[in-house]
Amino acid sequence: MGSSYEPLNVDTIGEKLGQLEIMKEKVGPDSSIWSAQEVGDGNLNLVFIVSGPSGQAIVKQALPYVRLVGDSWPLPLKRAFFEYHALIRQAKYAPGAVPRVYHFDESQALIVMQFMSPHVILRNSLKDGVKHENLAEFTGKFCARTLFRGSDLSMNTKERKKDLALFADNAELCDITENLVFTDPYCDAKMNRHTSPHLNGIVADLRADMDLKVTAQHFKAKFCNNAETLLHGDLHTGSIMVTDRETVVIDPEFATYGPIGFDIGMMLGNFYMAYFAQDGHETSKGARDGYAQWILDVTCDIWQHFEQEFCHLWRTERTGILYDRRLFEDQNQTIAAERALADRLKDIWSDLLGFAGIEMHRRILGLAHIMELDSIENDDLRAVCEARALQFGRQLVLSRNAYNSPYQIAELARAVRKENYL
Amino acid sequence: MGSSYEPLNVDTIGEKLGQLEIMKEKVGPDSSIWSAQEVGDGNLNLVFIVSGPSGQAIVKQALPYVRLVGDSWPLPLKRAFFEYHALIRQAKYAPGAVPRVYHFDESQALIVMQFMSPHVILRNSLKDGVKHENLAEFTGKFCARTLFRGSDLSMNTKERKKDLALFADNAELCDITENLVFTDPYCDAKMNRHTSPHLNGIVADLRADMDLKVTAQHFKAKFCNNAETLLHGDLHTGSIMVTDRETVVIDPEFATYGPIGFDIGMMLGNFYMAYFAQDGHETSKGARDGYAQWILDVTCDIWQHFEQEFCHLWRTERTGILYDRRLFEDQNQTIAAERALADRLKDIWSDLLGFAGIEMHRRILGLAHIMELDSIENDDLRAVCEARALQFGRQLVLSRNAYNSPYQIAELARAVRKENYL
Repeated sequence: MGSSYEPLNVDTIGEKLGQLEIMKEKVGPDSSIWSAQEVGDGNLNLVFIVSGPSGQAIVKQALPYVRLVGDSWPLPLKRAFFEYHALIRQAKYAPGAVPRVYHFDESQALIVMQFMSPHVILRNSLKDGVKHENLAEFTGKFCARTLFRGSDLSMNTKERKKDLALFADNAELCDITENLVFTDPYCDAKMNRHTSPHLNGIVADLRADMDLKVTAQHFKAKFCNNAETLLHGDLHTGSIMVTDRETVVIDPEFATYGPIGFDIGMMLGNFYMAYFAQDGHETSKGARDGYAQWILDVTCDIWQHFEQEFCHLWRTERTGILYDRRLFEDQNQTIAAERALADRLKDIWSDLLGFAGIEMHRRILGLAHIMELDSIENDDLRAVCEARALQFGRQLVLSRNAYNSPYQIAELARAVRKENYL
Repeated sequence: MGSSYEPLNVDTIGEKLGQLEIMKEKVGPDSSIWSAQEVGDGNLNLVFIVSGPSGQAIVKQALPYVRLVGDSWPLPLKRAFFEYHALIRQAKYAPGAVPRVYHFDESQALIVMQFMSPHVILRNSLKDGVKHENLAEFTGKFCARTLFRGSDLSMNTKERKKDLALFADNAELCDITENLVFTDPYCDAKMNRHTSPHLNGIVADLRADMDLKVTAQHFKAKFCNNAETLLHGDLHTGSIMVTDRETVVIDPEFATYGPIGFDIGMMLGNFYMAYFAQDGHETSKGARDGYAQWILDVTCDIWQHFEQEFCHLWRTERTGILYDRRLFEDQNQTIAAERALADRLKDIWSDLLGFAGIEMHRRILGLAHIMELDSIENDDLRAVCEARALQFGRQLVLSRNAYNSPYQIAELARAVRKENYL
């Protein structure tokens, strides 16, 4: 493959990748009988499923602009480089949790990786009311393992600093998060949209809410500066693929060093939004009550699994420069190390609630929305659901330190679901 | 000058630097009549004053090891690169506050810079009881300007991320801070020393103090991860030069991105130690009372000047991505921006007290001590002074959120100075 970047299409993929040994092995030796399908439903990239007699592979290629918006919004190809580097780190930190990388071509901004089948995007299930076993355990552990093992709690700090420097160059994708998550939704920015004029009043209230905005900006500062660990950076339910019993995490091109609470907070925010969307997808009154409850159970279980695994890693793999064992365990003061752990978990918990609330706001007030809400056809009903999510998000941001457990948050969600804020 | 590193000495400096235009200009065109004096009294480097008919210049050259310890402790030459880059940034952020850089030679790890005269090292004055005008205003503003302007409050964030990546490679000097400031002093580490067996009891108590150690480790995590701004990284009173009325800051080779409270906290910790050292340098009872009070006045004024300048910059130069004016001032909600400012100042204040207390501990319990205390000849008296500083430092770390102002801290210092903890 030449060094000059060229976007692939279904007709050129065989010719361009036919000589790759790994493609011959995974798809089949004769590329003339491969078939390719473009399935990119995300906002940024080309994604192909390439099929042949030996099997299938995913070919993901970055485009030099934001696909959702078009070439008026250029975006550097190097994001494929960061996705590749994030994938190999996540595979090391959480074995089996991400697709295997078969091949990376930097000049083509192209990653060939494992085709996950029969996996579907979790967001589709959350819209359709489909449950998945082991989802909470997988995602909770994924967060604990990647976020712990990518931090100074675990890594050699010189390696971590080198890695920090490498990912610091992913500035353009960080810029998207910085603006579209933390700032635009809280003012009358050009790319914002909300789906119904019914929301105008509540949207104006939120954009005038000084306490909310100040706190959201404190969280932005945390995201921008507090480089605790390597984040996935975009861990919403569209970045999670599931089967009946299995889960994988995909699409880490927003990877950056940031605060531990960010990934898990964004993920939980997406589950809470899915919860509030259920009323919009009922075929009969109460038909989604059981599923809505299941979503809340998942959120509680995610935190429990995260906490349990994080504690386990703290006790067994704390090999980094932070909370040195010489000061604690080696002095017969394990209880002090446990105190430090409790402090850190409390901070992570508080942070994740803030990030969750902000994620809920930006997905309703900002540019990028979520399908579970957008697809509610009845305009009035969708606005009722979205207004609940907005008020719930505000409460998470502003009252984050008043809550000790995900069970309380689940109770709050149930209470808010009974309200009509319009 | 060739590319192979060679340490200079007073005899080779003319030959090696004689062809540099800037040396010809500043020192004199004929290097055969230059004279050079090695004056490095720091722990790490060679420092020469080169004199000639046209004037003088400083030549600072890194050694490939820690000068204080010897070649058993190698230290990379690239620290000169970081010092150079920090100096030019500080000169931009706080014009006139650091020596002018005349020349940088990366292969020789060598910086030629302005000779400051008649400046002396502030630490000497603090030992000898010499006052300096404008000291608090200069240092408070220096901290406000460099720490604000090197952060996402001010900088273009893409430039800041690039700079973060550049300084992330200063890992070996960070490692010194990480270990010698935050960890070693709190356990029985090999390189620790304290100056008197009288302190054994209190040292053992501090090293067994779980609350203190947990909190110190939280501060280490902040230092390692919370990359808010470009720090000087070693802003003690030996890195400050003074005349009757002027001040400059030198030696930023420990520069790294870190929390805003670090530099100003380390500096104040050094002033508080100097305060507790005064009793050890009295020629008659009470002879240093006025000077001790002056030191406390300086600490209060430093914070006042810092706060005032930081507020000024917040209101007039907040051009970075944090606390976007579109959300506040542009909505006629200046008061919300003021609220965010107050929140940030409160955090900086709390952080600086923690860092100050830790700095006081490491300078008495760890490897690198301070002259004001070490030079107290009477072993009993020195131990009394050091014990006060240790207890005061512990209070700063653990009760940092109980204090609102430097005046309260000054009162605390006066109260502690009356105690005998031995």
